[in-house]
Amino acid sequence: MTDQLADLTAQSTNFAMPDLRPLLAPRAIAVVGASDRPGAGSLVLENLRRLDFAGAVYPVNPKYTELHGWRCYPSLRDLPGPVDCVAILLGYQRVLPALQEAAAVGARAAWALASGFGEAGPAGEKLQAEAAAFCRANDIALVGPNCIGVVNLHARAAAYSVALPPTIQPGRVAAVVQSGAVCLGIANANRGLGFSALISSGNEAVLENADYIAWLADDPQTAVIIAFIEGFKNPARFVWAARRAAAAGKPLLVVKVGRSAVAQRAALAHTGSLAGADAVHDAVFRELGVVRLNTLDELLEAAELFLKAPLPKGRGTAILTLSGGQIGLIGDLLEGDAHRWGADLRLAELSSAGRQALAAILPPYSAIANPLDAWGSGDFEATYPACLEVLAREPDVDVIAVSRDSPPGIAEREIAQSNVVVDAAARVAAASGKTVAVFANVSTGIEPRVKARADAVGLPLLQGTRESLAAIAGLIRYAEFRAQLAERGRALFAEPAASPVSADRLAALKRELAASSHSLTESQGKRLLAAYGIRAPQEALASSADEAARLAAALGRPVALKIASPDILHKTEAQGVLLNITGAEAVRDGYQRIVQSARRHSPQARIDGVLVQEMAPAEAVEVIVGATVDPQFGPVVVFGMGGILVELLHDAVLRLAPVSLASAMEMIAATRAGRLLTGFRGRPPADIAALADAIVRISYLAHDLRHEVAAVDVNPLMALPAGQGVMAVDALVVRR
Amino acid sequence: MTDQLADLTAQSTNFAMPDLRPLLAPRAIAVVGASDRPGAGSLVLENLRRLDFAGAVYPVNPKYTELHGWRCYPSLRDLPGPVDCVAILLGYQRVLPALQEAAAVGARAAWALASGFGEAGPAGEKLQAEAAAFCRANDIALVGPNCIGVVNLHARAAAYSVALPPTIQPGRVAAVVQSGAVCLGIANANRGLGFSALISSGNEAVLENADYIAWLADDPQTAVIIAFIEGFKNPARFVWAARRAAAAGKPLLVVKVGRSAVAQRAALAHTGSLAGADAVHDAVFRELGVVRLNTLDELLEAAELFLKAPLPKGRGTAILTLSGGQIGLIGDLLEGDAHRWGADLRLAELSSAGRQALAAILPPYSAIANPLDAWGSGDFEATYPACLEVLAREPDVDVIAVSRDSPPGIAEREIAQSNVVVDAAARVAAASGKTVAVFANVSTGIEPRVKARADAVGLPLLQGTRESLAAIAGLIRYAEFRAQLAERGRALFAEPAASPVSADRLAALKRELAASSHSLTESQGKRLLAAYGIRAPQEALASSADEAARLAAALGRPVALKIASPDILHKTEAQGVLLNITGAEAVRDGYQRIVQSARRHSPQARIDGVLVQEMAPAEAVEVIVGATVDPQFGPVVVFGMGGILVELLHDAVLRLAPVSLASAMEMIAATRAGRLLTGFRGRPPADIAALADAIVRISYLAHDLRHEVAAVDVNPLMALPAGQGVMAVDALVVRR
Repeated sequence: MTDQLADLTAQSTNFAMPDLRPLLAPRAIAVVGASDRPGAGSLVLENLRRLDFAGAVYPVNPKYTELHGWRCYPSLRDLPGPVDCVAILLGYQRVLPALQEAAAVGARAAWALASGFGEAGPAGEKLQAEAAAFCRANDIALVGPNCIGVVNLHARAAAYSVALPPTIQPGRVAAVVQSGAVCLGIANANRGLGFSALISSGNEAVLENADYIAWLADDPQTAVIIAFIEGFKNPARFVWAARRAAAAGKPLLVVKVGRSAVAQRAALAHTGSLAGADAVHDAVFRELGVVRLNTLDELLEAAELFLKAPLPKGRGTAILTLSGGQIGLIGDLLEGDAHRWGADLRLAELSSAGRQALAAILPPYSAIANPLDAWGSGDFEATYPACLEVLAREPDVDVIAVSRDSPPGIAEREIAQSNVVVDAAARVAAASGKTVAVFANVSTGIEPRVKARADAVGLPLLQGTRESLAAIAGLIRYAEFRAQLAERGRALFAEPAASPVSADRLAALKRELAASSHSLTESQGKRLLAAYGIRAPQEALASSADEAARLAAALGRPVALKIASPDILHKTEAQGVLLNITGAEAVRDGYQRIVQSARRHSPQARIDGVLVQEMAPAEAVEVIVGATVDPQFGPVVVFGMGGILVELLHDAVLRLAPVSLASAMEMIAATRAGRLLTGFRGRPPADIAALADAIVRISYLAHDLRHEVAAVDVNPLMALPAGQGVMAVDALVVRR
Repeated sequence: MTDQLADLTAQSTNFAMPDLRPLLAPRAIAVVGASDRPGAGSLVLENLRRLDFAGAVYPVNPKYTELHGWRCYPSLRDLPGPVDCVAILLGYQRVLPALQEAAAVGARAAWALASGFGEAGPAGEKLQAEAAAFCRANDIALVGPNCIGVVNLHARAAAYSVALPPTIQPGRVAAVVQSGAVCLGIANANRGLGFSALISSGNEAVLENADYIAWLADDPQTAVIIAFIEGFKNPARFVWAARRAAAAGKPLLVVKVGRSAVAQRAALAHTGSLAGADAVHDAVFRELGVVRLNTLDELLEAAELFLKAPLPKGRGTAILTLSGGQIGLIGDLLEGDAHRWGADLRLAELSSAGRQALAAILPPYSAIANPLDAWGSGDFEATYPACLEVLAREPDVDVIAVSRDSPPGIAEREIAQSNVVVDAAARVAAASGKTVAVFANVSTGIEPRVKARADAVGLPLLQGTRESLAAIAGLIRYAEFRAQLAERGRALFAEPAASPVSADRLAALKRELAASSHSLTESQGKRLLAAYGIRAPQEALASSADEAARLAAALGRPVALKIASPDILHKTEAQGVLLNITGAEAVRDGYQRIVQSARRHSPQARIDGVLVQEMAPAEAVEVIVGATVDPQFGPVVVFGMGGILVELLHDAVLRLAPVSLASAMEMIAATRAGRLLTGFRGRPPADIAALADAIVRISYLAHDLRHEVAAVDVNPLMALPAGQGVMAVDALVVRR
């Protein structure tokens, strides 16, 4: 974890775990606005009846004396006993009065269904702020408003306004979903996942997704937390919650939406627009071990896999299929989504012993490869199990994905075959301890008898080629995070930061910045970079040809010679520039020619001499290193390919600042620019070590000066050939 | 359609429609290798029994006298009557003898299950070639080998070796699937699509996917053709079949796999590797109106949509949702897959009258936008239908996508609500004639009663946010293809080609090329381009300072001055180059200085004078235009951003050559380079008309000389500011 994240997590001492028992395990629930008419007023009671809630249920509505078999009370003040949780089903104008009554009768939790609050303009925002302030002052854990409530399937408790599906089962997946309709989609999905809790968090006036996540991290009934997040009320609190989940060993799987809008919102400077807040989220998630997915389908498949599969020891993945067509499908998806999965899911190399063993199982004409087509001569009930045994013994295989479609409605014979595959996969998984999953290439549900067979032995059954691959890549990424966590322990969350500048020097830089204008001049920017150890091209004024030659020799590189005269603005027109000059003789000669040309061009000009400027060799590669300050997560550093097209190309990678040298090396390797730097088309390899060091230094600059500097843009930074370092040709620094 | 495609389609006169009635509507079927043991030998008979096939069934196996209630015969020669189709379930060595027997008894169709043929090395290839030659000579339509056979659900006929699902229904979707396992996946998918035919084409020794597609285009029972294609045996034949489908008004939806492998195979020259055969497939599919999808899930959802929805009149799409969370999910997917869908699916603009009408339906705090959150205050049974009515009246709305999840197992109340949505969507679709689809954000099947309700009125119900959007984008693209087809009629398939060079001149160019070596020199390449009207920078030799100034003035641009001497190879070292010189005085002066420098550097050198060379102004943009010859589909032209990183960046677009001016303009607009050309970061807009003209000319060069030239690479082509044309700075031409 970077120092910046450590900064955020340092605040975690300020965060107390909310007590959600009154909400999620209440002894008594009151339902204000209960009704017998179709709608929320009735459904909340129906859900409690369906769950067979063991506590007291108090419908509240002056119009009724009884509802769904429970006695109905005219107001909260009339209840016969204490109440933990109050469900408020009234319109938005009546929510605050209801909360006041709830506080008066000692309730510690409440849920407000109504919309018309924070999402509805200034008047709604004011109402929401009042309700939130009241709940905070009176220690009420408020869900919503503007959401469909919560369910705890183990406690059989619910304050939930939509009809629960009859098929829903208690289990070990907890869902925290900001959107009501998406919560409903997940609750209703019929994907065979049992749930511990379903929470729609809505406007998050008081309780935010971080509170639920942190509480669920401690909940013994929950093994996997899935979340659908639209925004973070309080990023530091999310970091705290994600850390608690990591510490508890509970995977946190997230769909985070809002890319498009959020990206438009964040446009600080050049690299600001490159970065985009969404890339910051990616970086934060990666560092916290939060697994990001893109659709609800991917989220559900990942939940199935994370719930059941052991964590793999490495990235090597073997894929067993029934045809070359399936291999084509898988191969194309792996390549197409390589930018997301490629680094995580690696097709395992088969050993020659393994290849021979597979060849012995399959017909002589079979291609032995990974992914493997094990259709054989149609006798895959024999070949599949045998091939699975071989693959599980392969040293480079950490994960085995087994392609087999078993949608509902298939023939008995197909069910029997699927069960052969399930049994073999389960057997191999148990014997090898490796990660084994069976996946279908169509997403139309799973035949119940096949599903039951797999569930009985805890074998994950996935659906959808794309979704299955995304889930597996996510599991591998998470396993690597856990391995790092185990290895580095707490250090992962508090890597010591060491700025390249001293505290005194930093204080001086801050004073200088305080005095400067909105954008620093190029030379001011370069001085700031120099303070962080990033050098600009060297230059010096020569007042004679001999001095120019001496200076050039000292630089030890090709030089540019430029006429130095306060009266000549357009040096090129005055023939006052020569590029790429090497050798003492040529420099001396160039000096003379430039001075002569300038005199001819402007006979009256004062001439101070000739500027001798270090030039990057032709083999240098232009890259960009930038930094910006994310409004939520703080300073970030960006690395990408240089040149003026940088905004267009999106070949950039971003990390929270500051970064370690190892992270900087990873950033370089993750870009296409990185490929270029290792030597491409006859170019020599660039000084990658020096480039990584420069990224670290610029990341510290962004971190140290995060209150003073909004954006840094070193473009281009010339990466010189190996051993020669880097050179900042231009630098833009924007003040906050 | 381009001329090249017209070339391919011109061959269509050579293609005869195969007679697939003996295969797909046989009067009698013989099953050689029938058996009572579990496996194909039994399953083929079980399938015929299940379908209640009305024709004669002849099991053939000397070991049995009766199988599954049918009399069994020792050999084909013993059958009591004529047979149309012979299913051959024997091992690969015994297939040819069985075909010979089949021919002897007058069968006109056969299917071979066995693998071990063309996919299995030289021996298998030989066996397959013999079988194919025999079938062609004896007029036998052969399916496979190495596949699971065919089913015609209307004729209730099958030669199919896998147990058909009991749920399968006759319908109007035909599936042509090269891979057996994928065919099985589609047949078993339980997606509620009825099928006319299921065809696994396997190795395609005789019948290839094009034959089935063409036949199905004429089949009155088929409305939509879906195909899973691994490769084209005969691209011209595929073009012919796709044209027949287009002419018959039947959408052809395709998953084409093999991107990764195929891309490696095609690496001719610089642009060859850029192009990649897969991009050629994209281009061919787009021109033929073939809708390409990426997964089986996308294919199935597209089939559902194409089967039921009317074609939209335009791209304007309104999306009705139940939450901001769903909008975030949809928005992010639209942006994330913009490179595939962006140009097709456009979020419609709402009129101010429409906005007012929506505001009147929804609570006062609602955000009125597209996508629209119509959850209201939870009363969407009222708001959804009303909002749908408004959206259907909007002039910019051509398609309405309605978000509503209805997976199996939901509560009664949810079913009722889904049915309200289905009814309203169906009502609005019927009244407006617009394209309306309801889609779910989870892919776990559809509640049967909701599905039945939608099916009864022909309303498409889709599943999966991503898959639904992909299907809608495909429908819009296809509708545009149909509109063009209707407008231009046959012209679309035979756009008249007009090469910029005359037939005589072309013949002369071919003679010159025949005499040249593998790669043309730069000046030969530039001469070839000049013949096609693409100019290189002008240059001329000056033998005096005054002549240099005259020549520079005639060019009317900045010039480069370069020493012209057969004895000076390294001009720069000799200070023999000056760049960007303007003005007569500066040119004269430059001439003198260059000659002096050269004399000083090499006193013995012969000096011919100074080359005066036109330079592109600094505002010119470097682009690349290239061409290559796809081994299957012929010459293609590529346009992309220039510079040495061109291979890395993949910002390129490809079309079959030659292209029209309109296509060339589209190519430019489709790239990021195109954005740069319209003016970016203070650059002036480039001469896009001239650039498009150059693309057309280079595409004709590639087309005219497709037998002589393997690759053309104009890199960079400088696009000068508007009105100033283009300039080919370098040209690589590779002979075939």
